[in-house]
Amino acid sequence: MNMPFPTEKKNQLAKQDKSKKGDIDQKIFPLLEAINTKEDYYTTSSCSGRILLWCGSGKKSEIEWLKVSHDLIAEDFYKISKQEDENKKGLIWLRLEPMILHVACKDLESANKLLDIAKSFYKKSCLLSIRNKIVVEIRGSEFVEMPLFKEGKLLFAEEEFLWLTEMLNEKMKKVWEKTEMLRKRF
Amino acid sequence: MNMPFPTEKKNQLAKQDKSKKGDIDQKIFPLLEAINTKEDYYTTSSCSGRILLWCGSGKKSEIEWLKVSHDLIAEDFYKISKQEDENKKGLIWLRLEPMILHVACKDLESANKLLDIAKSFYKKSCLLSIRNKIVVEIRGSEFVEMPLFKEGKLLFAEEEFLWLTEMLNEKMKKVWEKTEMLRKRF
Repeated sequence: MNMPFPTEKKNQLAKQDKSKKGDIDQKIFPLLEAINTKEDYYTTSSCSGRILLWCGSGKKSEIEWLKVSHDLIAEDFYKISKQEDENKKGLIWLRLEPMILHVACKDLESANKLLDIAKSFYKKSCLLSIRNKIVVEIRGSEFVEMPLFKEGKLLFAEEEFLWLTEMLNEKMKKVWEKTEMLRKRF
Repeated sequence: MNMPFPTEKKNQLAKQDKSKKGDIDQKIFPLLEAINTKEDYYTTSSCSGRILLWCGSGKKSEIEWLKVSHDLIAEDFYKISKQEDENKKGLIWLRLEPMILHVACKDLESANKLLDIAKSFYKKSCLLSIRNKIVVEIRGSEFVEMPLFKEGKLLFAEEEFLWLTEMLNEKMKKVWEKTEMLRKRF
């Protein structure tokens, strides 16, 4: 038996306060708040966008994060400590992920309304589930995924690190601008 | 007024035969066929996975494709002709995109059934629309998006082109293997 939507919402929002990370990323908090004040919606998970260095197979359970930034980065982001260097498994990737947000909706009608709004800013938005829980995913399209080190060897032109940093930071700023635009829409 | 689903299906599949490209990528054709034999589904668009060199702003309407391969590539894939070189707008990106497939479904129940199957292979599958048309998107997670040339300058370690080629080809093979696994499931 499903819980009534308001109970579900209350339980979920109480859980969020107790998240392991301790707090929700400030860059996405105003948007979450705007959505959670609406009766028909509550947010279940979110990321404001991030830049990371990772190694591993690429499967979600087999990814090791070496560095993560939810903020602008500086050129020293690509520097890996000796210990990380020793631990690394052959290949280190540099990734930029866009904003991503999951919103539980009261019914199909409210899900469709949210999806319409979301798609006008984020074309890749969709419904993750319409059975039991109805969940809309709002997702940006900014993305970078490039191999950066291979067995300790840099694969990128080092003299362009400043350019690379600025390019990634510009993308992050765009991610935040769009998040703010969506917030204003609510 | 919506058309009855069988009419919609008939019209769409007739359109596909007349596609500009002339034929659907052979790598995904057996899967499309398997889905289209089912009464409750028809495919509306698909890509079997591809590797491309592109330049432009990154917005869909502002992307210029310099090279596209739906097959394995060789090291000369990164070589750009003089004319392309002269036309290029500052930055050239190398991208690998996974298999992507859109399937129109008869009703929400059949959409949920398809989504369950799809998610067991492709976690990122979702519903694009549940109003008017009900469309499931089945999408792989393999992805590479890296800046390769900046104003004619190579940004990647040239002596690792063979490795890069093999890495991309391995990803493409995985894309095709998963496509075949999904086909077998039908």
